Amino acid sequence: MKLPGQEESDISSASENVPTGELDSGPGSGLSPDGPLDTDSRELEVPKDPPLFIQLNELLGWPHAPEWKETGRWVLFEEKLEVGAGRWSTPHVPTMALPSLQKLRSLLAKGLVLLDCPALSLQELTEQVTRVESLSPELRGKLKALLLQRPQHLIQTPCTSPCWGSAHPREASQEEEAPLKEQHQNPLRQKFAAGAEAGAVLAGQLGFLEQPLGVFVRLRDPVVLGPLIEVPLPSRFFCLLLGPPTLGRGYHEMGRAVAILLSDLQFQWRVRRASSLHDLLAALDAFLEEVTVLPPGRWDPTARIPPPKCLPSEHKRLPSQLRVAKGPSVRRRTPAEDRHGRRQHAANPELRRTGRLFGGLVQDVRRKASWYPSDFLDALHPQCFSAVLYIYLATITNAITFGGLLGEATDGAQGVLESFLGTAVTGAAFCLMAGQPLTILSSTGPVLVFERLLFSFSRDHSLDYLPFRLWVGIWVAIFCLVLVATEASVLVRYFTRFTEEGFCALISLIFIYDAVGKMLTLTHAYPIQRPGSPTYGCLCQYPDPGGNESQWTSTNPKDRDDILSMDLGLVNASLLPPPECAQRGGHPRGPGCHTVPDIAFFSILLFLTSFLFAMALKHVKTSRFFPSVVRKMLGDFSSVLAILLGCGLDSFLGLATPKLMVPREFKPTLPGRGWLVSPFGANPWWLSVAAALPALLLSILIFMDQQITGVILNRAEYRLRKGAGFHLDLFCVAVLMPFTSALGLPWYVSATVISLAHMDSLRRESRACAPGEAPSFLGIREQRLTGLAVFILTGISIFLAPILKFIPMPLLYGIFLYMGVTAISSIQFTKRVQLLLIPAKHQPDLLFLRHVPLSRVHLFTAIQLACLGLLWIIKSTPAAIIFPIMLLGLVGVRKALEWVFSPQELLWLDELMPEKERSIPEKGVEPEYSFSGSDSEDSELMYQPKAPEINISVN
Amino acid sequence: MKLPGQEESDISSASENVPTGELDSGPGSGLSPDGPLDTDSRELEVPKDPPLFIQLNELLGWPHAPEWKETGRWVLFEEKLEVGAGRWSTPHVPTMALPSLQKLRSLLAKGLVLLDCPALSLQELTEQVTRVESLSPELRGKLKALLLQRPQHLIQTPCTSPCWGSAHPREASQEEEAPLKEQHQNPLRQKFAAGAEAGAVLAGQLGFLEQPLGVFVRLRDPVVLGPLIEVPLPSRFFCLLLGPPTLGRGYHEMGRAVAILLSDLQFQWRVRRASSLHDLLAALDAFLEEVTVLPPGRWDPTARIPPPKCLPSEHKRLPSQLRVAKGPSVRRRTPAEDRHGRRQHAANPELRRTGRLFGGLVQDVRRKASWYPSDFLDALHPQCFSAVLYIYLATITNAITFGGLLGEATDGAQGVLESFLGTAVTGAAFCLMAGQPLTILSSTGPVLVFERLLFSFSRDHSLDYLPFRLWVGIWVAIFCLVLVATEASVLVRYFTRFTEEGFCALISLIFIYDAVGKMLTLTHAYPIQRPGSPTYGCLCQYPDPGGNESQWTSTNPKDRDDILSMDLGLVNASLLPPPECAQRGGHPRGPGCHTVPDIAFFSILLFLTSFLFAMALKHVKTSRFFPSVVRKMLGDFSSVLAILLGCGLDSFLGLATPKLMVPREFKPTLPGRGWLVSPFGANPWWLSVAAALPALLLSILIFMDQQITGVILNRAEYRLRKGAGFHLDLFCVAVLMPFTSALGLPWYVSATVISLAHMDSLRRESRACAPGEAPSFLGIREQRLTGLAVFILTGISIFLAPILKFIPMPLLYGIFLYMGVTAISSIQFTKRVQLLLIPAKHQPDLLFLRHVPLSRVHLFTAIQLACLGLLWIIKSTPAAIIFPIMLLGLVGVRKALEWVFSPQELLWLDELMPEKERSIPEKGVEPEYSFSGSDSEDSELMYQPKAPEINISVN
Repeated sequence: MKLPGQEESDISSASENVPTGELDSGPGSGLSPDGPLDTDSRELEVPKDPPLFIQLNELLGWPHAPEWKETGRWVLFEEKLEVGAGRWSTPHVPTMALPSLQKLRSLLAKGLVLLDCPALSLQELTEQVTRVESLSPELRGKLKALLLQRPQHLIQTPCTSPCWGSAHPREASQEEEAPLKEQHQNPLRQKFAAGAEAGAVLAGQLGFLEQPLGVFVRLRDPVVLGPLIEVPLPSRFFCLLLGPPTLGRGYHEMGRAVAILLSDLQFQWRVRRASSLHDLLAALDAFLEEVTVLPPGRWDPTARIPPPKCLPSEHKRLPSQLRVAKGPSVRRRTPAEDRHGRRQHAANPELRRTGRLFGGLVQDVRRKASWYPSDFLDALHPQCFSAVLYIYLATITNAITFGGLLGEATDGAQGVLESFLGTAVTGAAFCLMAGQPLTILSSTGPVLVFERLLFSFSRDHSLDYLPFRLWVGIWVAIFCLVLVATEASVLVRYFTRFTEEGFCALISLIFIYDAVGKMLTLTHAYPIQRPGSPTYGCLCQYPDPGGNESQWTSTNPKDRDDILSMDLGLVNASLLPPPECAQRGGHPRGPGCHTVPDIAFFSILLFLTSFLFAMALKHVKTSRFFPSVVRKMLGDFSSVLAILLGCGLDSFLGLATPKLMVPREFKPTLPGRGWLVSPFGANPWWLSVAAALPALLLSILIFMDQQITGVILNRAEYRLRKGAGFHLDLFCVAVLMPFTSALGLPWYVSATVISLAHMDSLRRESRACAPGEAPSFLGIREQRLTGLAVFILTGISIFLAPILKFIPMPLLYGIFLYMGVTAISSIQFTKRVQLLLIPAKHQPDLLFLRHVPLSRVHLFTAIQLACLGLLWIIKSTPAAIIFPIMLLGLVGVRKALEWVFSPQELLWLDELMPEKERSIPEKGVEPEYSFSGSDSEDSELMYQPKAPEINISVN
Repeated sequence: MKLPGQEESDISSASENVPTGELDSGPGSGLSPDGPLDTDSRELEVPKDPPLFIQLNELLGWPHAPEWKETGRWVLFEEKLEVGAGRWSTPHVPTMALPSLQKLRSLLAKGLVLLDCPALSLQELTEQVTRVESLSPELRGKLKALLLQRPQHLIQTPCTSPCWGSAHPREASQEEEAPLKEQHQNPLRQKFAAGAEAGAVLAGQLGFLEQPLGVFVRLRDPVVLGPLIEVPLPSRFFCLLLGPPTLGRGYHEMGRAVAILLSDLQFQWRVRRASSLHDLLAALDAFLEEVTVLPPGRWDPTARIPPPKCLPSEHKRLPSQLRVAKGPSVRRRTPAEDRHGRRQHAANPELRRTGRLFGGLVQDVRRKASWYPSDFLDALHPQCFSAVLYIYLATITNAITFGGLLGEATDGAQGVLESFLGTAVTGAAFCLMAGQPLTILSSTGPVLVFERLLFSFSRDHSLDYLPFRLWVGIWVAIFCLVLVATEASVLVRYFTRFTEEGFCALISLIFIYDAVGKMLTLTHAYPIQRPGSPTYGCLCQYPDPGGNESQWTSTNPKDRDDILSMDLGLVNASLLPPPECAQRGGHPRGPGCHTVPDIAFFSILLFLTSFLFAMALKHVKTSRFFPSVVRKMLGDFSSVLAILLGCGLDSFLGLATPKLMVPREFKPTLPGRGWLVSPFGANPWWLSVAAALPALLLSILIFMDQQITGVILNRAEYRLRKGAGFHLDLFCVAVLMPFTSALGLPWYVSATVISLAHMDSLRRESRACAPGEAPSFLGIREQRLTGLAVFILTGISIFLAPILKFIPMPLLYGIFLYMGVTAISSIQFTKRVQLLLIPAKHQPDLLFLRHVPLSRVHLFTAIQLACLGLLWIIKSTPAAIIFPIMLLGLVGVRKALEWVFSPQELLWLDELMPEKERSIPEKGVEPEYSFSGSDSEDSELMYQPKAPEINISVN
């Protein structure tokens, strides 16, 4: 599972298209989020200036036909006009040459700087900026006329072809001060929140000037400067850089330099408050102090750097006077602190022990009760509708898959109908009562594995399964209530990544093994027809006219070969296929009658189809193709689409593949039982007591599965405002256990992946975002209504169940394999196993590889592999049912690892356990920084959490 | 096909692992290539200084236990010591903060600068550098002792775990001046050619100093400074930056700054020639003039930038005095010139018309004759052995695949045996005679398509195929000789990318269509057994004891259903499967006897297996896994491995899949014919004349296929020294035509992909390369011996042919599909078709998208698609055989495009045709630069050619 707080990010990898959940965007985003819900404050309040849009208008075509053309624009990143292609370049990190900045500095130092200029129109501004001593009145007039010329903008609308803002650039006049239609129609306009301002930079070579002219203006009040800016934003800054052609492209570069400076938040902050030329130059010098320098021989200055996934936070570079002004709260946390804070006990307040019986539960109920009304009101947002649709489809896919598999695991004691019913009822109940109502319940992988083991145990001992299971459920409820009463949930802090990954890896492997195993079993049920195998031997035998069946006049067969070659002497036989034969009153006879050819290989094809298509569609989400809406749809519904595709293929060919078993009516899958399971059935009475033993194992499993999911869902990076409810959640799960057991429904616990998908579909993000910037994450719409709606829809879908009988089982096995592969490939353990195969030179630049020797990393991986092997062996023995205890044993192994690995190593590879953490001072944890004196050398970006992508339990 | 000169490179993509064929590495590589063959001069001779290895030793642990530790090293890129992990970081572009450079400048300005210091040992050097006025004698002594302390180096050997260079760092003494064992064993040592020098930078905080101490030393003669440097290289530069702890990490940063400066070739050049402090500072200032600056808010200074694929060339930044000194030859070509030069007429001298009959051929023979002896001597290199193995396997895979397909296309008139024989004989002959002996002949895709059309034509008109084909071959030879005589090969200049891509796309699509079509045909031959289909109806009927067969006592069947249901009344029948039945003297009877179940789906599985595995293995080559040797093997032999895997699967299941037809003896595949084809056979005599018509078509096809391949193979970026021989190559192909036709062997022309693979396996590359740098390409081992050896081995393999009958045909169809998909996905046309699906925002940063409006790009793509559609329609009509003429028609369409598109647009999307090119002045071609005054804004890197990856004709 990817654990965002301790995420290893491969910084050398290409930039991704997927928006990342930015945690710490700070003021870097520049654009203020809008909407009534966006009131949650940023972690650190930095003086908030309006966002600035900067545009560079360049004077081209001098001396023949001078005209202004917008050739660059900046919000966060630079977009350059591709003159030939008539399009804006992809946003990129702006780079410049140092001399441009230095030339700019000296030009401004000599030039005209107007701070708080009172001009109210372009006309007035032109008047002001041309009042330069060095200009003769004639030149002044020429310059004014030039400045009033309407510039050409490239306005790129998303659907139509690009249009040039002004077709007749030279017909500008004073009446055109008002913003143009194109300016208002510019789609870029929507990107800016109210209050955004603009900065106009005009640069170019102008032959009639004898010496360079540099003017920098800060307007007292921002003014819309007619058609100067492509979007009708009021301009705050205006900069003019013109001069004789001696400098050539220098003016363009200086213009870019001003624009880049203005797009820098720190520089902007200072310049907005500057009271003199000196302040302006000081701001420029402060900028220079902070720039990163790339050596010329190692980096082509013209290469465009794609925007980084996350911007560096502005706190780090707060100017010292600000830092003092804001007091100690501005102190930047070190990466190590961040990792601790985010990862370790994000849910700490909820995980503090009260020491009273049911104390945690009472606290949970009290905390959640206060939010209860808002849990319904907060759902009033259109986003919730699409979330319901998405999660509904995911939920029924889960219900079908797990129901089908459960039906097979328990020989039809339970099935799809139970799965639908149970999902709907328990899910809805949980949504109404739970501590974390965003959780989606599911009959998850680990419980399914346990149920299969329990079933085969009861079959081996000739027990009546459902009554036995009822008692197990009752006992589990009792044990879980004890766990709630004793506030055992606080112990989840001992479940480190090591435990979680062991849990996830084992379950994923079981999934993969089972999926492949079931496919191989199919080839036994539908044997492949090798040359020489008795495919052909089948006859249809009718009763003779007298009503007696035709007789086999056989010699005594000695061996199988003899059976085939015996003389038949048949009367009244035909070569009809068995079904038609039966229809006509005959009996199919012969060794080949019961073999169904072609099914085995076709099933394998269906299996591969659903697996490969689900995988491929999942990857579409991060590809460049299609608009993002389509891409997201294809990615999100990958398994539904893969199943649909497989069903289409199956029904097109019309082969008798094994299908999902669905009862025709609304009654339990097991024939002959009512909805209520009888408490004893055919079992002896003492079995109800003995059921406590497997129940203990199942309780451990449910506790682990439920609480690991809980910790992941309630991590700090999701910015949940309403808090978690670990005790309450476990209580709800416990209460639902006897209910589902009594009705013979599957057992339910929280499902990580689908719950995370639910949260993800309810993300609140800043809408306005600069080109190249990923939208910033604001929080989750926490409410109970979407979940409730999903489960009501699921309940209604029970009546759609008859359609499901068209789904071939191999498709579900393929989805099963897909789930296993996806889950196992998302955990860090898998990455470390892969490292074993990658030569050191080609290893990705992972964070833990920077801090832990490779041999130690490999040792850690080897120990995990050994544990996994041991678990697998136990699972394969008759003692398989005790595997929950073995999973818990992982916690002990992890504890023992403290003797083998240093705390620093464990911190990077895993995380610290509670006591250990307290015993080591923060400083001591990262000794490699002790000599460096100041900041860590790891990029802050490496600690940024990614979008949630956790598959801790497979479901 | 990817055309390196006009390559569109997606600069935002991640760095690749594949070494790129660097064309213009200039002095950027720093390390001089070695070996006797590396005498070819660089294009521009820039003063060549020895390469420099720079090491930063940092003083850590002050005041408790001060010790020197190597924490960084530089050749081209920076490698940082990961202290915690005990490993070197991945090489990355060094970045620094501007203030470090400025502080360094002021420290050096005040400090001690010794140029041409005569010290001969570390002892002497220490003596010299501590002679600073500000130091008291006591401090001087302490400092000297400290400087003589042996530093800790991390020496990373590839196989063993890293070892610290010095276990007892504080036991250093004067005797240890000699280099240590670890230093000599350092694998890094091998990376440096003789003459390499080192630079040592020592930095850190030293409490007893009252003010910062900066010393810069250039030694008169480079000296091995004992254990100071991790590799025993003589040091030329020595820099000491120590001071009181006030600056903190500043000394480290200044040390990095010195190291980065010294690793810059320009700075190094200047400092080697500096005669005073002033020169040193001037060099630093010149460096500052050229640095690229990244704004602080948009780029995290701690982020590590992976090395760019190609370094920017040093010519661009030659200091002006150098530029003057070197004269006009140093003038950097503009990117537009580069593109022209590289792409357009790389092979120009060979393609100049002489005006005499056979003039070109005579010239070719004359030119190649002078190289003939060296063509054998140059093969004496171990690299040639592995090239032979690689190309041999590729060749027999080709021979099997094309032979198998040809056998099927011609109903067994030709087959695998002919394919092997023809490949061996013609290939060997071509290697001995050809103008470009690196070319590998193959019966390529287009010719195979034509052969299939010719066969179906002759079958439809009841012609005797092989005699007819013989005459076609004879006529082709005549036409080709006419083309050689008239020097028609110079016309290949009219084959622009448009034509090449049309050619490639059509053939690839035919491949894909055929592969899928053949699979579907298999399902007709082996029908799928739907429920109700007559699978089961099969009986084995024996003759009765009297020798008469048992009789079917049937009523007259009225319809199919009746046949099945009729009463049989059989005597002496059994249910044995048909083969066993026949063995025992019976006759299989019934509608189900001839259906073979399971074969259809198993064939599809085999087909998918070979296709998907070949694709996957191809991708292994660019993955991070496995050592590069293994990766290269898996990638290079992907189709062989996929075929082997499929054969294994097939023989494991033992199903009766359709197999490759191979004759049991060494005789022609067509039963009953001798090796020599009779000149007329059953055909009328006039057919020998009429054969001229299809021969004309085939000549066009062969000319196009042969010469397009020739142009690609002889491109300038492969740095061939021995020149091309277009006329001679075509002559050889022509001469071989009647020979292969007379023996009934396939027809052969040059195969692009396999020939490029041949050249690639003979690349000469600089062995010594700095960490992070791709090895630079020096040329190709041009010789005739490897090709000859390959074809001799192929000839011997004819006797292995019986093994080939175990190869199932579906596997070959899968490889066929793989070839088609690979070929079509490698052309720019496909990329442009994909662009139609990508929203403008997400489009990759392709070069042509920067310069041509998107709507024009789409129009160009649409026209190409329309041409392709038209070609496809023609191919599907009875007139299919004229498709070579239609292919030639593409040249006309391309010519007509000049009325639709501007020359600039065509230059970016395609290339210019000869006349057009001459008629447009260089300036006019790229008007978007006219206003920019100076350099293009496109990164030079975007024009760098990639590794050859061209699939112009499918083979």
